[in-house]
Amino acid sequence: MKQHISNPARARLVSLARLLEDLEHDGISVITSAEIEKRTGWTSFTVRRDISLLAVSCAGPAGYSVAALKDAISGALGIRSAGRKCCIVGLGRMGAALIGFEGFSRSSFTIAAGFDSNVNKTEILRADFPLYSTNKMEEVIAREQIEFAILTVPEKAAQKTADRLVKSGIKGIVNYTAALLSVPPRVYLENLSIIDALQKLAAAAYIY
Amino acid sequence: MKQHISNPARARLVSLARLLEDLEHDGISVITSAEIEKRTGWTSFTVRRDISLLAVSCAGPAGYSVAALKDAISGALGIRSAGRKCCIVGLGRMGAALIGFEGFSRSSFTIAAGFDSNVNKTEILRADFPLYSTNKMEEVIAREQIEFAILTVPEKAAQKTADRLVKSGIKGIVNYTAALLSVPPRVYLENLSIIDALQKLAAAAYIY
Repeated sequence: MKQHISNPARARLVSLARLLEDLEHDGISVITSAEIEKRTGWTSFTVRRDISLLAVSCAGPAGYSVAALKDAISGALGIRSAGRKCCIVGLGRMGAALIGFEGFSRSSFTIAAGFDSNVNKTEILRADFPLYSTNKMEEVIAREQIEFAILTVPEKAAQKTADRLVKSGIKGIVNYTAALLSVPPRVYLENLSIIDALQKLAAAAYIY
Repeated sequence: MKQHISNPARARLVSLARLLEDLEHDGISVITSAEIEKRTGWTSFTVRRDISLLAVSCAGPAGYSVAALKDAISGALGIRSAGRKCCIVGLGRMGAALIGFEGFSRSSFTIAAGFDSNVNKTEILRADFPLYSTNKMEEVIAREQIEFAILTVPEKAAQKTADRLVKSGIKGIVNYTAALLSVPPRVYLENLSIIDALQKLAAAAYIY
């Protein structure tokens, strides 16, 4: 179960698990690697190799069992159906946009709290979860056993806030800011900076 | 110039270029790989190996020249200082949040247009660039020579909108929706779905 799965393979498997969920929802019970290729753009070779990393057999004569493959990925990658608690740190435009994001309800993640240093924001904004002053961040994260933080503070405050999140025992940070964050190796980081994403596109468009 | 740089190395070099820009702005002209390690969390071995991919020498006795290294990365990855044109497609909460994102002004990207199928939104929202009905998307992208699109439409409209962007000749798409998009290989895709990012964190926290 703890075999090595590279970051790109893990990213594809995470996306594949979500595709399988959608297929299941649409009543599709079997899928071939060629069909996965058509829907995702990954080659069927890549798809089969990624699935082989799971070290379980989900393939029947007509293709993979959607349910079995989904469970195998969830098992191997620790994708739980139960709610994993997250918080949004920084309730500016981006943080406020995420408060109402429809995708959370269908996911295995629950937003348990939002934080902002400006008390006006925590009082004015409406959310299905409590909003607190950033002063209470450490206390609330510990009490609510929040595992992951979504960082949407201004760039200048990003590293300091990340340091506080690390000390609070958070397991991972999704970084929406343009700041390059430094965190200890036990804390996982996903960078969702729009500028970085555009630069990667530009670099790819130029090189290949 | 066209040597192979893997995706993870390219992503780090893109981030490193931005760090170097910040350093230059702060008046720092020389940096060592150990200092880069401290600021980014990548090992100095990784940093030196990534820089070696550039196949140019930017190292002096006291460390790398910040300006020379920045130029070498920009040259190798095609990061231009001139404005590369982007558009925002979908002006819901997320798209509207991106309209005002401060980071664009310091970047080499310019938002040249925004699109929404709801004409009320294009009339009410304020932006430094023109907002159009999605009907005009193909026409505006061609006329303005827009290279990249930031996709923030509702998940159900994502693939159809991506298909139209591809036909418009867009070079790359930053996908903020939770939809798994299928695009031809000549179009580059960066996925910034918050749910995918959280699942990657969760998978990393579980496996290692």
